Amino acid sequence: MYQDYDVIVVGGGHAGCEAAHAAATLGSRVLLITMNMNTIAQMSCNPAMGGVAKGQIIREIDALGGMSGIITDKTMIQFRMLNRSKGPAMWSPRAQSDRMRFAEEWRLALEQNLNVDFWQDMVTELIVEGNDILKGVRTSIGVEFYAKSVVLTNGTFLNGLIHIGEKQFGGGRAGERSAKGITEQLIELGFESGRMKTGTPPRVDGRSLNWEAMEEQKGDENPEKFSFSDETKPLENQRSCHITYTNDKVHDILKTGFEKSPMFQGRIKGLGPRYCPSIEDKINRFAERERHQIFVEPEGWNTVEIYVNGFSTSLPEDVQYKAMQLIPGFENAKIFRPGYAIEYDFFPPTQLKATLETKKIENLFFAGQINGTTGYEEAASQGMMAGINAHNKVYEKEAFTLSRSDAYIGVLIDDLINKGTNEPYRMFTSRAEYRILLRQDNADMRLTPMGYKLGLTSEDRYNQYQTKQANIDSLTQLVNDFSLKTKDANPILEEKGLKPLAQGMKAAQVLKRPEIDITTLSELSPELKEKMESFNQKELEETEILLKYETYIEKEEKLAGKLNSLETFKIPELFDFKSVTALSAEGREKMNAIQPKTLGQASRISGVTPSDISILMVHLQK
Amino acid sequence: MYQDYDVIVVGGGHAGCEAAHAAATLGSRVLLITMNMNTIAQMSCNPAMGGVAKGQIIREIDALGGMSGIITDKTMIQFRMLNRSKGPAMWSPRAQSDRMRFAEEWRLALEQNLNVDFWQDMVTELIVEGNDILKGVRTSIGVEFYAKSVVLTNGTFLNGLIHIGEKQFGGGRAGERSAKGITEQLIELGFESGRMKTGTPPRVDGRSLNWEAMEEQKGDENPEKFSFSDETKPLENQRSCHITYTNDKVHDILKTGFEKSPMFQGRIKGLGPRYCPSIEDKINRFAERERHQIFVEPEGWNTVEIYVNGFSTSLPEDVQYKAMQLIPGFENAKIFRPGYAIEYDFFPPTQLKATLETKKIENLFFAGQINGTTGYEEAASQGMMAGINAHNKVYEKEAFTLSRSDAYIGVLIDDLINKGTNEPYRMFTSRAEYRILLRQDNADMRLTPMGYKLGLTSEDRYNQYQTKQANIDSLTQLVNDFSLKTKDANPILEEKGLKPLAQGMKAAQVLKRPEIDITTLSELSPELKEKMESFNQKELEETEILLKYETYIEKEEKLAGKLNSLETFKIPELFDFKSVTALSAEGREKMNAIQPKTLGQASRISGVTPSDISILMVHLQK
Ligand SMILES: Cc1cc2nc3c(=O)[nH]c(=O)nc-3n(C[C@H](O)[C@H](O)[C@H](O)COP(=O)(O)OP(=O)(O)OC[C@H]3O[C@@H](n4cnc5c(N)ncnc54)[C@H](O)[C@@H]3O)c2cc1C
Ligand SMILES: Cc1cc2nc3c(=O)[nH]c(=O)nc-3n(C[C@H](O)[C@H](O)[C@H](O)COP(=O)(O)OP(=O)(O)OC[C@H]3O[C@@H](n4cnc5c(N)ncnc54)[C@H](O)[C@@H]3O)c2cc1C
Repeated sequence: MYQDYDVIVVGGGHAGCEAAHAAATLGSRVLLITMNMNTIAQMSCNPAMGGVAKGQIIREIDALGGMSGIITDKTMIQFRMLNRSKGPAMWSPRAQSDRMRFAEEWRLALEQNLNVDFWQDMVTELIVEGNDILKGVRTSIGVEFYAKSVVLTNGTFLNGLIHIGEKQFGGGRAGERSAKGITEQLIELGFESGRMKTGTPPRVDGRSLNWEAMEEQKGDENPEKFSFSDETKPLENQRSCHITYTNDKVHDILKTGFEKSPMFQGRIKGLGPRYCPSIEDKINRFAERERHQIFVEPEGWNTVEIYVNGFSTSLPEDVQYKAMQLIPGFENAKIFRPGYAIEYDFFPPTQLKATLETKKIENLFFAGQINGTTGYEEAASQGMMAGINAHNKVYEKEAFTLSRSDAYIGVLIDDLINKGTNEPYRMFTSRAEYRILLRQDNADMRLTPMGYKLGLTSEDRYNQYQTKQANIDSLTQLVNDFSLKTKDANPILEEKGLKPLAQGMKAAQVLKRPEIDITTLSELSPELKEKMESFNQKELEETEILLKYETYIEKEEKLAGKLNSLETFKIPELFDFKSVTALSAEGREKMNAIQPKTLGQASRISGVTPSDISILMVHLQK
Repeated sequence: MYQDYDVIVVGGGHAGCEAAHAAATLGSRVLLITMNMNTIAQMSCNPAMGGVAKGQIIREIDALGGMSGIITDKTMIQFRMLNRSKGPAMWSPRAQSDRMRFAEEWRLALEQNLNVDFWQDMVTELIVEGNDILKGVRTSIGVEFYAKSVVLTNGTFLNGLIHIGEKQFGGGRAGERSAKGITEQLIELGFESGRMKTGTPPRVDGRSLNWEAMEEQKGDENPEKFSFSDETKPLENQRSCHITYTNDKVHDILKTGFEKSPMFQGRIKGLGPRYCPSIEDKINRFAERERHQIFVEPEGWNTVEIYVNGFSTSLPEDVQYKAMQLIPGFENAKIFRPGYAIEYDFFPPTQLKATLETKKIENLFFAGQINGTTGYEEAASQGMMAGINAHNKVYEKEAFTLSRSDAYIGVLIDDLINKGTNEPYRMFTSRAEYRILLRQDNADMRLTPMGYKLGLTSEDRYNQYQTKQANIDSLTQLVNDFSLKTKDANPILEEKGLKPLAQGMKAAQVLKRPEIDITTLSELSPELKEKMESFNQKELEETEILLKYETYIEKEEKLAGKLNSLETFKIPELFDFKSVTALSAEGREKMNAIQPKTLGQASRISGVTPSDISILMVHLQK
């Protein structure tokens, strides 16, 4: 009765929104089904986007034509570029958002997309014919919707169970219901599922805090933004965050709750994120640390609600409350709602192809927390990739994947599908081999041409990229060719207390000196300065990075190229790894399970040894 | 461990928000506990406030110092004064609001109130000592909060059960959980409970409608607003609504769903609102009507979501869909979520005193839909009254009640506690005996002095009222005293084609002519015009009404005065009606149950006859 869709997206979280946006923008007819239309793109935990490695992902999403960057820009209340003091590979944009505005902007953005329809309801079942032919979904009120492909992005909702101290109750998030049915059906269809957990801190009443007792943390003085597009502007006013610390007394009170802790007492079966630990985890694992940092973050422009970053906990609520009162600034803190942990079902992502399509059921895609990841950025990027590939599959276009040297998104998906994950997977710079290639500043250079080719990035954005690229090229040329004269440069250098030039030299060479930035460089010659004036700040910065880090970049590019040859070394479809008896037992088994498509992919499967790869290469070359 | 409160308000709907605001503004320490802080003041059904009789209530709330008028003004997208063509007693303000903005403004307003604390959680139990001593509440996570009084405003959430066709599932609203525990405990404590139902129409995608096929309904050309305060301004731009109609074919399709209708098949036990019927009710009860009007109302400034006013239904969702496609303009309509009916527990309000305190448990108050009413305005006004009385009780101040001639709010509460209600109670002008006294324009005259005396209305607002009152008095005096001369008046009257004056007469007398409004009056003498120029539009209008309707107003005032003598005729506390054997059996029983405080109240109890009142009067005068 209802129209048939190309793509149905189940769940309107970060993954679901990007998936719907991507598929619809590419031209698919999309139906987004979510449990509550008022909670579309709800930020479940902290109202912040980006941060180390995660900020890079948002830039990548933006460069490819996704929305998370634009939505964040439109709703942010504070922006900071983290790690400015470190090398540019480490620079990471981070923004605090207004929680309500963020959700509203996403919803309105999707409403603007004529290819996206909405349905508020809980999906309880996939419609699957004969075990593996996907037809659509069935909802809790019994409606059936048919589609060529389905993207599941259920987040933490599948059989979600909330824990606070010794209390447990079903829920997908505080105040929201959990989702039932899907896990059980997928298991019946032969999927493997697991259980994970994550936690969130209490929310408190900003009116009850003593701000004087905390350090203020302002936003950047000249804030940047996430999106490469001109559609958004940097902030003119910002709200401050604050910093305070736990102490011995806080820890002592928290310890009194350990015997009722759902985690320590084993009531929570799911694995938690090691890198995003609860406060009880921190004082347990790092017993030697006398204090832990707490970031006190506003939830929006106007609301008094405060997010207590660093104080995630599932201890009994009275313990949370008492401990909190001993944190400087929190002496009279009032809680709006206590912290809690949530356990939920996930599906080990080794069951997926690089397109995020499941291996078992064609046209079924998984994206976001359902794949065992944690974090909005990780979810959003998977959603976008699943949306793209669901569309491409329906329209019989090529699969779209990113390599580990293309993007953090490539690293993320490659890790997931090959290594799987035992604990909630979060992105870190350390997971990437090519950190100096995968910078936040060059995400557009890396990915906008691909996004444009796909059809996800607009003509405008592509033209903007091209202009930028052309300008960087000519600026690089200019700096490479231009010879600085000692008579021009040295008086300025000396005035600045810097080492003078021994002889005339190319500007590019001077720029390689650590103490010379591109602005200083331009001052070393009136002629050069004049020529450089036609370039904008972003182009200057980008060229500076490219030239200063030239050798590192080249090295990583060479390495990536070399490994890419493994990447292009194809393994035939349905290859029987068991037939290669020379392989290690574990290697054979793992490769049979994962079914890698290339030697490169095979090399990253955990349990597969370098010698397995050599053996396989020889075998396949025969 | 947590601080003790003066007043705990359970539920953050319209009743709960006004209750929290009133008690806190009066000086009580208030804790507002609600299931989800993101749904505070959520409009469950249509995003509109006011309308016939309901608009008067919002004005009354505003005049007393409540917030609903201000919040509506700040968030409205369209304003209309209904019934302008009828007498001023019928004029009724109505506004469409932006649903998201409305909820957000309410939350931010409460956050501004330093006496309001928040807790997100479900209250599952009252803490009651020894059967009737109220101590506080217990929540689903096991937290206990203590308070001197508690206001329950659970709305449609108590054991809420949602019906769509043959499907049923628990829920307080679509996408939200129902609340458990409270009903069962109250029954155990001796309360009587009942079951009611209400319904809501499907929400549709505005992008899929053909607006050309419908009539546009614009807002008023010179829109007014709800609040008497200067804090809000009338709208400069408005969004239009649209009107369309059902037809035979629509009805025929709907009828195919009757055999699966939860109402017609008796699956819904609760009683529905007769005056706010579902579309299936309408075509069933008014079989002769060929069509029913449908108002197509936007849900906000930016969203494409549309509310289909007049199409409330709990028929199977495919029937809803198919029938809707046959409504002009809806040929390609896409549904965001189907209409549904919801059944919920209520407590017959005859168990309440006029302060909305329960008779059984001291310091326990009920307000809103839990009392068997329907509608935001009805809920909000009860919330405010309960909040005021909870505060006054805690601080040992006098109870605050309104009589039937003071306000629609007085009529509402008096009806509820004396007559009770078998179906969801909604306010109508016909319920009021003193319609000409209870106008929307004079709510401030009627109630602001009371609000100020209470401490709920600000000094500013009171001064504003006093100025207005003084100006109306002097304008009335002026018009009463001023003699119009035929030489001034008649040329103008003739020019306008109106009957000239036979002789010089008082301006007030001329104003009584139906065809003369106050602007015309002012034109009948340059001197009068000049004198009237110092009065503003509101004062002119008000004076006009007072003079034009003087005789009606006096008549109603006299009547109200007479009945008020019954009202002041007190019945002793704990009077044993059974001892007056001359009373009718039913009268005796009903009065014993309700325990009326005055003869006036006794006279309005259903089942009590006029002769019962006479007998009682004689008995008490002995
Ligand atoms: C309590 C909590 C604490 C967290 N703490 C952290 C943290 O400290 N650090 C961190 O990085 N990340 C944290 N996260 C994780 C972060 O919120 C998620 O990674 C991210 O939101 C995942 O996005 P998603 O789109 O996959 O799912 P979600 O954002 O969870 O969205 C899922 C959506 O799907 C809908 N849905 C689910 N099932 C159905 C169904 N059957 N039918 C229809 N709709 C359905 C839901 O209504 C929801 O809209 C936390 C999450 C929670 C809940
Ligand atoms: C489906 C539907 C259709 C309706 N149709 C109409 C209509 O056509 N016409 C009309 O005039 N009115 C209609 N109404 C009624 C109107 O919405 C209500 O009259 C009005 O919202 C009642 O206000 P309230 O404050 O009493 O309760 P609600 O607005 O229902 O608010 C109740 C609040 O209490 C909270 N709560 C409940 N239980 C607990 C608990 N145990 N612990 C903590 N918090 C709790 C809830 O989360 C919610 O915030 C409809 C309502 C619904 C749900």
